[in-house]
Amino acid sequence: MTVNELVKAMGKAGAYNGGALAKAADLYEKMLRDKQATKFFGLAGAMVPAGMGGIVSDLIEAGHIDVLVSTGANLTHDIIEAIGCRHFHGTAFCNDVELRHDEINRIYDVYLPNEAFETFEAFMQKTFSELEPESRISISGLLAHIGSRTKSGILHTAARKKIPVYCPAVQDSMVGLQYWLFSQTNHVTVDAFADMPALMDRCFSVKKAGALLVGGGVPKNFILQSMLMTPNGFDYAVQLTGDRPDLGGLSGATLDEARSWGKITEDAQAVTVYGDATITLPLLVAAVMERMHHG
Amino acid sequence: MTVNELVKAMGKAGAYNGGALAKAADLYEKMLRDKQATKFFGLAGAMVPAGMGGIVSDLIEAGHIDVLVSTGANLTHDIIEAIGCRHFHGTAFCNDVELRHDEINRIYDVYLPNEAFETFEAFMQKTFSELEPESRISISGLLAHIGSRTKSGILHTAARKKIPVYCPAVQDSMVGLQYWLFSQTNHVTVDAFADMPALMDRCFSVKKAGALLVGGGVPKNFILQSMLMTPNGFDYAVQLTGDRPDLGGLSGATLDEARSWGKITEDAQAVTVYGDATITLPLLVAAVMERMHHG
Amino acid sequence: MTVNELVKAMGKAGAYNGGALAKAADLYEKMLRDKQATKFFGLAGAMVPAGMGGIVSDLIEAGHIDVLVSTGANLTHDIIEAIGCRHFHGTAFCNDVELRHDEINRIYDVYLPNEAFETFEAFMQKTFSELEPESRISISGLLAHIGSRTKSGILHTAARKKIPVYCPAVQDSMVGLQYWLFSQTNHVTVDAFADMPALMDRCFSVKKAGALLVGGGVPKNFILQSMLMTPNGFDYAVQLTGDRPDLGGLSGATLDEARSWGKITEDAQAVTVYGDATITLPLLVAAVMERMHHG
Amino acid sequence: MTVNELVKAMGKAGAYNGGALAKAADLYEKMLRDKQATKFFGLAGAMVPAGMGGIVSDLIEAGHIDVLVSTGANLTHDIIEAIGCRHFHGTAFCNDVELRHDEINRIYDVYLPNEAFETFEAFMQKTFSELEPESRISISGLLAHIGSRTKSGILHTAARKKIPVYCPAVQDSMVGLQYWLFSQTNHVTVDAFADMPALMDRCFSVKKAGALLVGGGVPKNFILQSMLMTPNGFDYAVQLTGDRPDLGGLSGATLDEARSWGKITEDAQAVTVYGDATITLPLLVAAVMERMHHG
Repeated sequence: MTVNELVKAMGKAGAYNGGALAKAADLYEKMLRDKQATKFFGLAGAMVPAGMGGIVSDLIEAGHIDVLVSTGANLTHDIIEAIGCRHFHGTAFCNDVELRHDEINRIYDVYLPNEAFETFEAFMQKTFSELEPESRISISGLLAHIGSRTKSGILHTAARKKIPVYCPAVQDSMVGLQYWLFSQTNHVTVDAFADMPALMDRCFSVKKAGALLVGGGVPKNFILQSMLMTPNGFDYAVQLTGDRPDLGGLSGATLDEARSWGKITEDAQAVTVYGDATITLPLLVAAVMERMHHG
Repeated sequence: MTVNELVKAMGKAGAYNGGALAKAADLYEKMLRDKQATKFFGLAGAMVPAGMGGIVSDLIEAGHIDVLVSTGANLTHDIIEAIGCRHFHGTAFCNDVELRHDEINRIYDVYLPNEAFETFEAFMQKTFSELEPESRISISGLLAHIGSRTKSGILHTAARKKIPVYCPAVQDSMVGLQYWLFSQTNHVTVDAFADMPALMDRCFSVKKAGALLVGGGVPKNFILQSMLMTPNGFDYAVQLTGDRPDLGGLSGATLDEARSWGKITEDAQAVTVYGDATITLPLLVAAVMERMHHG
Repeated sequence: MTVNELVKAMGKAGAYNGGALAKAADLYEKMLRDKQATKFFGLAGAMVPAGMGGIVSDLIEAGHIDVLVSTGANLTHDIIEAIGCRHFHGTAFCNDVELRHDEINRIYDVYLPNEAFETFEAFMQKTFSELEPESRISISGLLAHIGSRTKSGILHTAARKKIPVYCPAVQDSMVGLQYWLFSQTNHVTVDAFADMPALMDRCFSVKKAGALLVGGGVPKNFILQSMLMTPNGFDYAVQLTGDRPDLGGLSGATLDEARSWGKITEDAQAVTVYGDATITLPLLVAAVMERMHHG
Repeated sequence: MTVNELVKAMGKAGAYNGGALAKAADLYEKMLRDKQATKFFGLAGAMVPAGMGGIVSDLIEAGHIDVLVSTGANLTHDIIEAIGCRHFHGTAFCNDVELRHDEINRIYDVYLPNEAFETFEAFMQKTFSELEPESRISISGLLAHIGSRTKSGILHTAARKKIPVYCPAVQDSMVGLQYWLFSQTNHVTVDAFADMPALMDRCFSVKKAGALLVGGGVPKNFILQSMLMTPNGFDYAVQLTGDRPDLGGLSGATLDEARSWGKITEDAQAVTVYGDATITLPLLVAAVMERMHHG
């Protein structure tokens, strides 16, 4: 049984999040096939340490992502993998003080040795030192600079394909901490708002727009709000989130809520699949890629 | 890409619930291949209206379930489908008063017209009328009687394969309400505890035991507690649940907690996958069946 | 600041589950003050080991519960406390194999030594031995018998106040396992359906009805379905649950869904508060009792 | 019954999140009473539209917050309330297209009319126009400038008390969109990293540190990571979150995980309460303030 056959069977069963996943696959296929649609991709959470980076790189490579918005955490771990360090499989049921003594950092059941951060520091400081002194740079410019120095991964693929990567809260990550270290003795200004004009121009000029939102957080909000100032809105939206709506946070908010704001259009097609994206993202992408490869 | 290849890829990514699902597949395969192991299956929630009944029937047919414990809701909807009525795909975002006026009953995004319950009532009353008057019967006996009168579905397959179906809270379902109706003019005693001796005998005599628990509720607890009075415990346990542990309910409890009670053995292999079983159950079963079919 | 003042302030803030809690308090007060309304109380989960038993006993004592539906787990732990055993505060982050060796059973962060179950067994066997030989008994009859032998707690208070306690899945608990033990050498038939006539009669004859549902599970479904066969429905419903609707299970289902079935009336007032009932139940009850005591 | 008495009773019951809340109150009291401890406060989600802003302002006023980290959404709504606009109580079960036609923006069950954003735009553009032309400013500097122009609320109180407010992802909010509008015709550079030196200096120099984390998101991560580059770590940490750990996101991560990284010290006291902060935050703060006022 192929993955697409399984997803189609979930659509026939048709209920709860299995049914939603099948609808999401239909919608994501439609969005990818719509040549007029600009495709946004939001990557929240800590998906790269969980091994989801390859899917994102592949989607960029295949031309399925036009604008990527990510947390700093995902980009930190993308770089860590690109420079040859590895995440290990561990367990969430452990003694964190012992891990601390063993110099292992834990992300739920993913383990990352401290030495990865030492390699990371060396790479980042060298990379930052190649920025033009006394210059002013945007966050996406900083990330493209890093991507031009890595040989694989999301930032590398995005840089090669000239896909902008936005990361509004870049300070809130190891990338940011390394930049702070660099900035103590160097003067390059990272302009927090320098990415806005190009993004807003794009949002004003899109014919149609679609978004795949993996998790919530800053990436989801930043993507959805980008249409707020324009007469446009997203025409397609697929959301894979583990959060719940009743807590009032944007991460778990329904996409219908986004309709009241005009972030998505009144008649936008929108599907939310609740669940862990380490399951729903591979399922969705494998099913849709199977369809794309068969015409 | 086949489903098993996807699940193996999730195992390589290795984290969060995607990683857990891959481990669950390995463990469920091992459990099914262990000829010494008695296989329990717990079916909570409202999985049958969501189209999951076929998977359960197929597993019984293939000899992969030795003991089934279910909620009454699942069995009610199994009968409804077996007698030719259908569940429809709707939406959870609707006006329930209008549905009421349209005589449609809603289970999240599954719609069931009232007329299905009329057909159900006729079938159930006829079926109950064929019970021996003034007799005493166990709940599994009552369910086997029903299964002998249906032509497809879980109860039918279980009856044909002589697999006991336990449903401790049978009163708590439409099956129960129909029985109450029948009992107003008939006298058959359903003995609440009549199933216990056979189940306990089996638990005392198993060489090894494994459980696949879909959701929590009564089925999970009833299966796990069945080992409490014996010197045995479950050797394998796979749990697919959407609940969370910190609320203290058994439905979201970790399987490690079951270790403290001796419900699973000290060195039992146990994996929990958090998420909606309408996604995780088809994924798990399709992957493992693919392996079983290839030797 | 009194608890009621806090809840009123949450109502003024007015959003998410804090706002819902304030609405729930208003509705529960209205329901308790409605002398025509029969009051149902559903107690799911494992609330008694978490110290919530006293609140339930107090509500029964004060005449605020007319019909109680519980899981067997809650009643098991109610008896355990009533016969002088204690639950201990532990941690959920522990080694369950070590707990097993120390003969401690864990419920999330509640610890119960095995010796409590020894005391429990002695008490239960003695209590069951006082049942009339060869008789037939309902589940609520069995529970009232136990309540007549304890000196405090939910079953005791309910027995004293002649409030029926229904527990459809009584087999699915330590009470049930003890009964199985007893039944190996004794013959008392517990009739699974013997409680239905009195409950259904009551449901047919109520003028108005209200329900406070703590958690979901069998208690919630059994209470709500009790109106299904009648022309009536619940006029008031307050639900405190930690589950979520999108998984399709009844435990997390909205009360609006119940409207489509006619379990609650078309114009019933209904409020759901999502969250852990060890927080929301004491808050709700303390606020409403404060109001009741002031007229 | 006072709120503190209720929280103490939850501590006596002692289990699940009710027990955790009582422990959190004890710990937060200890942290506030520790004169050596620098107090961080993380405010994620959309807490201000839910009426939680007053609690935060009061804590700043009382000297209980030394460093505040917030999402842009909370600050946007803080400004909206400070300039006289109001959030309304609505329902989450509504037609969002109709809301769109009525020019009402929805945040779960909070409604905000579009006209509030018109007033907001006028205020923000005027406020930004008073920035020194061609200057370079930090995000906290920008927010302090806004706070100096409002007459109430979080930003106002923080500005008056000279408490820094950090908002790493300020672009990701209506404040950010307004700034983009302003920046089209004005040149003030908001330096994304200008806040780091003062924050890092503070983290290097603290004797002890404590954090109250409301929700996860950028505020939680930014606060916890601030200690990563220092030999210090948080000595106290209280987390109120509705997320769950198994999804791997930081928002639901246990505080023990933070121990492996050294974000909190090996022997830090740390408590997580899972649930909606519109319930847990008022409960926690009311109980602890009651204690502080009685010596």
